[in-house]
Amino acid sequence: MQLGSIEAGGTKFVCAVGSEQYEVIEQTQFPTTTPTETLERTVNFFKRFPNLDAISISSFGPIEIRKTAPKYGFITNTPKPNWPDTDFLGYIKAAFDVPVVWTTDVNGSAYGEYISLPVAKRPNSLVYFTIGTGVGAGELVNGHFLGELGHPEVGHVRLKRHPDDLDFAGICPYHGDCLEGLVAGPTFEARTGKKGQDVPLTDHVWDIMAYYIAQAAVQETLMLRPDKIVFGGGVMSPAFLTKIREQFKLLMNGYADVGELTDYMTMPVVPHNGSATVGNFALAKAQVKR
Amino acid sequence: MQLGSIEAGGTKFVCAVGSEQYEVIEQTQFPTTTPTETLERTVNFFKRFPNLDAISISSFGPIEIRKTAPKYGFITNTPKPNWPDTDFLGYIKAAFDVPVVWTTDVNGSAYGEYISLPVAKRPNSLVYFTIGTGVGAGELVNGHFLGELGHPEVGHVRLKRHPDDLDFAGICPYHGDCLEGLVAGPTFEARTGKKGQDVPLTDHVWDIMAYYIAQAAVQETLMLRPDKIVFGGGVMSPAFLTKIREQFKLLMNGYADVGELTDYMTMPVVPHNGSATVGNFALAKAQVKR
Repeated sequence: MQLGSIEAGGTKFVCAVGSEQYEVIEQTQFPTTTPTETLERTVNFFKRFPNLDAISISSFGPIEIRKTAPKYGFITNTPKPNWPDTDFLGYIKAAFDVPVVWTTDVNGSAYGEYISLPVAKRPNSLVYFTIGTGVGAGELVNGHFLGELGHPEVGHVRLKRHPDDLDFAGICPYHGDCLEGLVAGPTFEARTGKKGQDVPLTDHVWDIMAYYIAQAAVQETLMLRPDKIVFGGGVMSPAFLTKIREQFKLLMNGYADVGELTDYMTMPVVPHNGSATVGNFALAKAQVKR
Repeated sequence: MQLGSIEAGGTKFVCAVGSEQYEVIEQTQFPTTTPTETLERTVNFFKRFPNLDAISISSFGPIEIRKTAPKYGFITNTPKPNWPDTDFLGYIKAAFDVPVVWTTDVNGSAYGEYISLPVAKRPNSLVYFTIGTGVGAGELVNGHFLGELGHPEVGHVRLKRHPDDLDFAGICPYHGDCLEGLVAGPTFEARTGKKGQDVPLTDHVWDIMAYYIAQAAVQETLMLRPDKIVFGGGVMSPAFLTKIREQFKLLMNGYADVGELTDYMTMPVVPHNGSATVGNFALAKAQVKR
């Protein structure tokens, strides 16, 4: 079996072909430029594998996921130049006569994390947060992704402001101080003039970030009561996650039991940001008729 | 077919027997006193119907919903005196040899609202908020209630504070200014010294309330992307819901399409707070073997 993975990010595309055991046979990546150029490179990569059985796309968004919608398979009103109203799925389907899965980048990552856990520890529900250039979450419940009218947009919920951060307006062009507007990677420069990697973890700005991300985790916890929350994306690190867990504990104040926090809120098990690729392989495999 | 409904609230119990068409055959209600007295009255009511086919309980909480948990069927750490650690489901099961459904009050209401919509308009997912003495939500997705480690506790999420309400500490004993601490019915007295029904809708406190409830609706929208959100409970009215919709629109700022707000955010279709009773009838009916 040969399975195709397209991890379509706003900055770069990662395309891979994998085996039934989700081992990468070949992988390539290239910057996300215009749709025409980027999708052509994508198709050219997979054309070298004439025995592909299925492909899965995990895309940046917003995307149309309602199968009955006229624009199913499109990237819709994204702020990324040139990409609004792009028929991504249609372009791939026209090039390959195999089943093609269409979901969000964070859903792909959520599925990759889910499938990578040992079967005995595989939860009924898992939330995958990405905290990076953008902020979002994929939510997997009983094998299905949540979202009826569209995919979740968890990055844009409002939060209680940290008392030491009340003057920061936030950077979201739509909402100012929503979650993404308060904790996305570029907020480091907006707050401190320095890039996140140059701000030591002892800086109070990390406490403020942890307070907000912990609130988002509290929201997911109280709204879904999931079995597990995984945190990926460029802003995350094990030491920062420790801070987030501490804030989470203070915010919950013993209200809802989630078991051991070190099991409940974790870093990805798939290394090197590979969760979405593994997830795509697994989603593609599920489409292959035996 | 005879179906039993127990709507167990923290203030009163409503017990009813209904037909296969969810018509109430007989109904009674009594105050929630001690567990022994209240559950005995419940059993005595249903003992008069020897042909009951199934019962459904929609209970105040927190309750244990994990079937594998030793305390499945219990009311757990509720602040209500005498009720912590009460084996509610066990008491009912010991008295009646019929299938008994066990879920939360808001889940029962969510199901009642779902089943009461015309089949053609029945959504894949529905959220039912209660805004009353307490605040919570039931979430139904593809016929299942959300919640793995427990049932949702949406009343306890944090929110961005309204600029004109920063001095109000909130009334939640666990979290102070969580959603319930900011908008539950008793907050009217805490803020204004008057009961909610005595505060005219022109009072600015209603705008503050609408701002918070709209944020909770935004959270549900961005986390679940449900088809529909229904608002019940003593604080709600059609005129107040109009205010909430206005705040919701401002907060979303066009970010995620939910269709017509008057279809998306509605009052209950079941009159007289009867949603949970209808929901219980339907949940009980689903247990009856043909």
